[in-house]
This record gives sequence, structure tokens and C-alpha cells, in this order.
Amino acid sequence: MSEILLKNCRVYTMDESVPYAEQILLKNGKIAQLGTRDDNLASNNSVQEMDLGGQTVLPGLNDSHLHLLSYGMALSTVDLSDVSSFRELIAKVQNYIDNNNIPKHEWVIGQGFDEENLQEKDFPTREILDQISQCHPVIVKRKCTHVSGVNSYALDLAGITAEDNEKIEGGKVYLDQDGKPNGVLAENAQNLLSHILPSYSEKDLEKYIKLAGEAFIDKGLTSVQSDDLKAIPGGEDMIMNAYLSLAEKGELPVKVNLQLQLSSEEEITTFIQKYSPYFQSSVTDYLNFGPLKVLLDGSLGGKTAALRQPYLGDQENFGIVTYTPESLDSLLDCAARHHLQIACHGIGDYAIELFLDSIDKIQAKFGGDYRHRIIHCQLTDLDLINRIARQNISVDAQPDFVGSDYGLLEERLGFARSINTYAWKTMLDKGINVSGSSDCPVEPFDPRLGIKAAVTRQDANNNPCGGWHPWEKVSVFEALKMYTVNSAYATFEEQVKGKLAPGYCADMVVLEEDPYSTPPQELDSLSVNKVFINGKIVK
Amino acid sequence: MSEILLKNCRVYTMDESVPYAEQILLKNGKIAQLGTRDDNLASNNSVQEMDLGGQTVLPGLNDSHLHLLSYGMALSTVDLSDVSSFRELIAKVQNYIDNNNIPKHEWVIGQGFDEENLQEKDFPTREILDQISQCHPVIVKRKCTHVSGVNSYALDLAGITAEDNEKIEGGKVYLDQDGKPNGVLAENAQNLLSHILPSYSEKDLEKYIKLAGEAFIDKGLTSVQSDDLKAIPGGEDMIMNAYLSLAEKGELPVKVNLQLQLSSEEEITTFIQKYSPYFQSSVTDYLNFGPLKVLLDGSLGGKTAALRQPYLGDQENFGIVTYTPESLDSLLDCAARHHLQIACHGIGDYAIELFLDSIDKIQAKFGGDYRHRIIHCQLTDLDLINRIARQNISVDAQPDFVGSDYGLLEERLGFARSINTYAWKTMLDKGINVSGSSDCPVEPFDPRLGIKAAVTRQDANNNPCGGWHPWEKVSVFEALKMYTVNSAYATFEEQVKGKLAPGYCADMVVLEEDPYSTPPQELDSLSVNKVFINGKIVK
Repeated sequence: MSEILLKNCRVYTMDESVPYAEQILLKNGKIAQLGTRDDNLASNNSVQEMDLGGQTVLPGLNDSHLHLLSYGMALSTVDLSDVSSFRELIAKVQNYIDNNNIPKHEWVIGQGFDEENLQEKDFPTREILDQISQCHPVIVKRKCTHVSGVNSYALDLAGITAEDNEKIEGGKVYLDQDGKPNGVLAENAQNLLSHILPSYSEKDLEKYIKLAGEAFIDKGLTSVQSDDLKAIPGGEDMIMNAYLSLAEKGELPVKVNLQLQLSSEEEITTFIQKYSPYFQSSVTDYLNFGPLKVLLDGSLGGKTAALRQPYLGDQENFGIVTYTPESLDSLLDCAARHHLQIACHGIGDYAIELFLDSIDKIQAKFGGDYRHRIIHCQLTDLDLINRIARQNISVDAQPDFVGSDYGLLEERLGFARSINTYAWKTMLDKGINVSGSSDCPVEPFDPRLGIKAAVTRQDANNNPCGGWHPWEKVSVFEALKMYTVNSAYATFEEQVKGKLAPGYCADMVVLEEDPYSTPPQELDSLSVNKVFINGKIVK
Repeated sequence: MSEILLKNCRVYTMDESVPYAEQILLKNGKIAQLGTRDDNLASNNSVQEMDLGGQTVLPGLNDSHLHLLSYGMALSTVDLSDVSSFRELIAKVQNYIDNNNIPKHEWVIGQGFDEENLQEKDFPTREILDQISQCHPVIVKRKCTHVSGVNSYALDLAGITAEDNEKIEGGKVYLDQDGKPNGVLAENAQNLLSHILPSYSEKDLEKYIKLAGEAFIDKGLTSVQSDDLKAIPGGEDMIMNAYLSLAEKGELPVKVNLQLQLSSEEEITTFIQKYSPYFQSSVTDYLNFGPLKVLLDGSLGGKTAALRQPYLGDQENFGIVTYTPESLDSLLDCAARHHLQIACHGIGDYAIELFLDSIDKIQAKFGGDYRHRIIHCQLTDLDLINRIARQNISVDAQPDFVGSDYGLLEERLGFARSINTYAWKTMLDKGINVSGSSDCPVEPFDPRLGIKAAVTRQDANNNPCGGWHPWEKVSVFEALKMYTVNSAYATFEEQVKGKLAPGYCADMVVLEEDPYSTPPQELDSLSVNKVFINGKIVK
């Protein structure tokens, strides 16, 4: 490959030994050399020079936890993130059915509603969803995907009854006054639908993956860490095949680290036997594997996050944990035997504590630098944060959650307890590797939104004034670090990506504006003018 | 003392375990209890309640390095910080003489000029200063106080000749084309004036200390760490007596940690013998002693900061060090034998390296948690920063220097080397205790200016756009921490002040505005509405 010299630019390298440069020489997809205005980097005449006209260059952004395939699939579902009443929800899904002429008996899937934004402040039950259609199975998923509502058609199709509550661990079939399922399913109760949800072909999945990846690049993401194996119940192999096939053909638009959501020792063992050859020597640097993703509790919104003290005004409700301490120990022990890094979805303080206890045990037994991770890590206290720091556990944070959730936190937890949520600056100051993520499709994947939210701690309307719990605001540098260096550290790739330094991948974003000169509230409007992956211009 | 309950306020405690509160109960000069909107803290009827109407409460601010007495004395000298040519400088000093009817033969002292801001870009020589007066001794000090210009009257009075250059260590008498002193004196050469400078009485000093202290409180400082012993050559005892006398009378307006600038082993030993009784049991908590202040090099502005590579365009000039490696080792060894914390003025990378080498030796020999300090610590690289972190050395930073110096740095050091200056965010991220200071009268003491400069990295006119080397910007929280928690850590007082937590001194600032809702460029305009020291309202 020929050499490219990027000139006349402001390069924030994120490399602490040379934090700033003004030209970059690329060679064979890597950064070859950096220089300032006074240097002459062009080593020969074949160098292709590119004048960037004073634009800003950053390392390519890296989302440390999202659901690429779910997002791709969501492109063919109804987006409910903007509905504000049951009436609107019903109308939007009905329009979708009409506009797309969805045949009777075919699934209709909506996602992204947030009952906090609904006038009714409640989950949609079958009574509501039956108003959409009684001749299509209908499911609408909460934005966190931990709670769904289904209509009577779907309930009947799946054969769900009140008695299922006795069979499910870590989940709940909600009942109406007569003791019958009301259509709301939380956590593992959603699996009762697995056998009847629509099926996809591998080709479908390839299409969705490419669509999503291309959208990601457009906003400056060059790497994403994606939790996809459970996007289709029972579809692990098809999903793996779709990814492997795209990687082999060189058609993955964006670099992907696949997070492996596997819920039992048996699943882990089977998966490892089948796919471990790909773990060591990836097909390309576009596809890597790990960590094991463990889903330990739900969400604060859905009142399913596992708390040490009950939800405010709901003294019986401590949330839901998907594993007992013993079954979690046993699962993590199995993961450790297979040398897997573990990333645990943990939102409530009880879930986080449970995970730390379990990690203590496997670290004592197996040791090693595993950089285990807590995804979300929303409700903490100083003791938990100190334990996380001491165990060198990384935290995958979703800055955008602040804007969506801050109104809800006092309501769910009371004011005093809400002070200890989303404590990312405190975590960073303790030396914890906090990386940036969107959890897309839970929040929009656009990393500029996350960067803005981390810096401002405000929602899209710049509320609350001054930012929510503003001592936890991070600087622009720290927000960029969360989406570059820290995301790379979480996947053991800190020697490869996340910085612009000699030998690193030439994964880069070119911005029209300088984020440091941009008012914090306008960080979501930075113009992504060019994107490079491995030295190639992909936007 | 009665109890006071502050209500209806936004309290940023700077205490990581309880970062935010909405009411504070004060008892006997200490914080007794904190609470949120839901708590009822008033323990009995005698509690005096104070409704703060939603204002912000912070721990009292603490400047980790300034010259309180020099500032007080400067109130009776000519302020030259705003002159932009020799003509203006001459006119301003002449006006001062005329307006104050300064009798012939009496000293005229000006301070604060910066040759970078003068049209002539040069130090004022005797030729210039003779135009002010030939019948008054005149001295004008550079803002850094490391370089002065004197007129012919003063030169002759002191009997300074070219031959003095052979006698002075760590200083320089500048010469004209004829080989005669041109009136410019750098570093220790300034001591040649000691015996002829005007004398002060202890009462004068008490007056200056009170004047300065009151001015400090007005801007929200409740503690300052002041390097004053050399404010008057040979005046150490008088200065100590003035401070001790004010402390005994309870007339110190502000809490003072006196930094002890002592330049030889003999000075240290004599001082310790005389004053160590006060070290253990202070008269009040308004006056504490330590660290030993060592002056190791000069300033980048004056080209006297000691560099590892020469000044740009001045290949012979590496700056000036005041000690040889051996004499520094010996001085620090003496300090360690007396259990003194050491704060070293070190600006250039050579001076910083020399200090670290020497600290390595005394730490290996004596051990202990001394939290030695580097004041200024301007030109570093990653290796030096890593060493500073490893040795748990604190850095006393002057955020306001960025605005004053950034134009000069490229000129003195070249662009590439300038990237590694004022790297406070990098230092904080390495876990280094970076505290905030003004070095007043070098820069104005107003801590709001320092907080603004640390956050924006801009000068008073908000230049350069986006901030100078903006990856080193700190967050508002970090800037506040520099002036509270971190300053307290530097004097081993982190259990006493710098936070608002039960048992801590009730040293507090009440601000009209919330600094987190204030645009960064307006942080210097926060309104300091009330100041408490030990629970008493002092403003």
C-alpha cells in the first residue's frame, strides 16, 4: 500500500507521551510517524499528501457495549422511543402494519418504549396491545429490552400461563386482577416466546450487520464491542456464521469485538469447543471474540435491577437476579477454566456486589490479568467503587443513560441513594478503566451523544441546568479517552488501537471542528468529515 | 458556641463518600452533620438557622503557594504588571514619585513587569531607569521576581561591579558593551542589594500581613501557604515574630501555612533550633509551619529556568541552577534529618530531574511519608511525570501562568518541547496531588482566576481559542479539588480541611452562582457572598 501523509491538521493522539501532532504519515494501514509543523515526514515522492485544512484528527471511536445485530434488525421493527402515550404507541404500530401491508398472523415487533415517557407511566398490557391488532402477534420491548408487552394473540400462541412463574428463574409473568397473564413479561419470562418468534436466514443477518456497521461508521465509530449472540433465541450458530462469513469475505464495515452472551456452563463449553479456533487467530483484525457476557440483573427503569435496599415506595421489591450466588460462582469458575474475560451486566448495587464477590473467588483461585468488566454499573457506593478499582475491573458506562434516567432515579431510589449513581468521574479518579458505550439500540449509537452527555450530564434539551450531579462531569479529554483508549484497554487492544502512535492501526476520525473549542452542549453536532480504518478512507 | 444550621443550599462537599448535601449543621467551629432535603438536622431550639436561598457552598479555598507578605508590601510599591513599553514604565514610576512626594534618596520599588509584554521585549537597564530618577535608588522587579533592573544610583549605592560575577553562585550581573554592569540582576545577584534596601518594622509587617489576609478572604481564600521568610533579606526573625504575634493575638485574618525558605544547612539548623517548639504545637490553627522551600532555578520568562536542552536560538544558555547536585543532596539530607517536608521551586526539566535524583537518595536513606513538593513544575516529560507519581511528590501548579506564558513557550522552547509544559491533567491522571496556587504577587491571588484558567487554559481575553494544549484542561470538579482537597493534602491537613464532612473545620465559601452551571469563561466572576472560617462569618 502506498504511503499517505495527512498534513495541516490538529491531531489529538490520546497518547500520553506525544499528546499532540500536526501531521501523520500512514504506511500499510498503520501509523508510521507523527510530526509537528516543523517536521518533514514525506520520505519519498510516492507519498500521497492530503491537506486537511486545519481539521481535527482523533483515533477512531470505539463503543464498548452495544448490540449491532439487534440494531440492524431493529431497522425492520417499529421504533417506539418517541411515543408519549398508549394512544400514540397504538397508532404508530398500526401505521406500520398498514404502510407495510403486514400479512395477518405475521409478527409485529416494536421496541424502545419507555413507560416513564408515557402519559400512563405504565407498561402496555395485552389489553392495550390488543387494540393494535388481534390477528397479528404483537410484541413491544422496553428500551432496556428487559421488559416486554405482548398482545393476547402472542400470549396464546406461546401458551403462557400464570403457572409459568413457578418454572422461570430470574423472570416474571405479570398477572392481572383475575390472576391471568396481563401481557407484561420481565427478564427470563421473555424467553417463553423464543419458540414462536419469527425466524431469520443467515443472509438476513449479514444484511442487518452491514446496514448497522455502515451507519456506525458514518458517525465516527471504527470499532464496536457487540453483544449479539442472544439477538435471536437459539440463533447463536447462525449469528456466528454470519459474522465469520462477512469477516472472511472482508465485508465487515466496522471492527467488531463479539461479546459472548452464554448463560450456562453447558452453553459455554459447547461454544468454546466449536469456536475457540477462531479466538486465537482471527480471520482478520475486523473480528475478535470475548468477553463472556453474563446478564445478572435488569434495569432501574423496569424495577428489575437488583438492589440491596428495596425500591422506594415498593418495600417488597429488591429487583431480580438471574443467578444465585452459587450458580454465579459456578458459571464464572467455568469461564475462568476456559480463560474467558467476563463482562457482567450489573446495574443495581446488589448485583454488582454479587459479581465482585464471585470475581474475588475466581481471582483467588486462578489469578491472571483478565480485566473483568461490569457493564452499566449504575448504583454504587464508595466501598463498591474501591473494590472495583482494587480488582482492576473495567466499567462500561453509557453516558446517555444520565439524560434518559435522571428524572427516574430519585423516584426509584430516593434522593440520597441517587447521589451514588453514574459515578464515572469518581471511578476514573480511582484509576478505574471506564469506557464509553451506547448500549444501542437502548440509546442511539451516535458516540457524539455519549461524549456530550459525559461532559454535560444533561439530556437532549440541556436539562437539568448545570448537569445532573455535576461533580461527576468528565472533561472533553476524558470523554474522548472513554471512547478510544479505555475501550481498547477493555479488549486488551491498547497496543493496537485507541491512540495515534507509531505502529498503531490507522483507524481515525477527521472532524470539521475541534472538540476542545466546541461548547460542551454542541459536542453532539461535531461534523464527522472523514473516517479511516486501517489507513483506508471508509467515509 | 451556638449551633448554626445552613439550609436550602447546594453543598459540593468534595468528600467522595458523600459528594453532595443540601444542609449543614455547624457546631463549635466544625461541621457536625450534613443532610439532604429530606433530613431534619436541627437537634434543639437554640440552633440558629440560616436560609441560603439556593446558593452554593464549597470548602474554603486554599492557595498552595504564594507570598502573602510580599503582596502586602507590594501594596506600597508601584504595580508594573500592566505596562507595555519602557516609556509607560518610566511614566508610571515617575507619577508614583510625584504623587507620593517620595523624598530624594529614598527607595522607589516597582514590581510585576514582564518584558514579553513590553514593546522592547527586553529588561529595563540602568540607562532606562536613570530616566525615572537619578536622585532616588530605583529597582523594578520582573513579575517572577527572579530578575530585577536597578538604576545607576542603586548600582553605585550597592557597589556592584563586573567582578561580582565571580563571587556569586547561581546568579548573574548583566554587563553592557563596555563590560560594566548594565543594571540587570538575575537570581542571587539580586542579593547584592540586601544591605541597602529599605528597612521595615515588625509593626509594618503586621499591618501588611493583615491587609493582604483581608484581601484574600474577600475572594474566598480561607487558607494560604505562604513563602515569606525571604521577603526582606535578613528579616526572617522579624517576619516570624510578626506572624507569631498576630497568631497569639488572634488577629491573623486567614489561616497560614508558612513555607520556610532557608538556603543553607546553617540557616536550617539555626531556624529549627529557634522555632521548632512552634512546629509541634501551633499557637492556633491559623498558623502552621513547613515545608522547607528550596529555590532551585529561575523562570522561563527570564531564561533562568534550568533546562536539559538549551533555550531556542540561544544555544549556550541552559538557564541557572542555584545548587550543584552535591550541595542540593547535602541540603536535603540536612532537611531530612530535621524531619522537614521539602518544597522545591523547579521550573525547567533539568531542575526537576535534579530534585528527583536528590529526593531518591534521601527517601532511600530516611524513608517516611513526606509528600515532598515541586512548586511550578512547568517543563516535564512523561518519564519525569512518572517519577513524580512514583515518589508521591505533590505539584503546586499555577493555572494562571498558562495565560501569561503560552505565547512565550514556543519562543523559548520550540513548539515540540512546549507540548510538555503545564501538564496538570496528565499529572492528575497519574494520581499526582496537583494543588492550585497563584504565586501572588507573580499572578493576582484571586482563586477564581486560577480555577477559570485551569478549566479553560486561556488568558483573560479567552485566548487561544479552545484553550492552550487543551487536552490538559481539567474539569470544574478537578479545579475545585486543586484549591481544596489537594492543597490540604500537601500540608498533611486532609483530615482537617479541604472537605465538608463531619469533624472538619467549618471553613466555607458561599457563592451566589453554581460553578457547575457557570460557563467556564465566566468562572472568574462567581460572586463570593459569604466566607466562614472555623464556623465564624468573616465576610
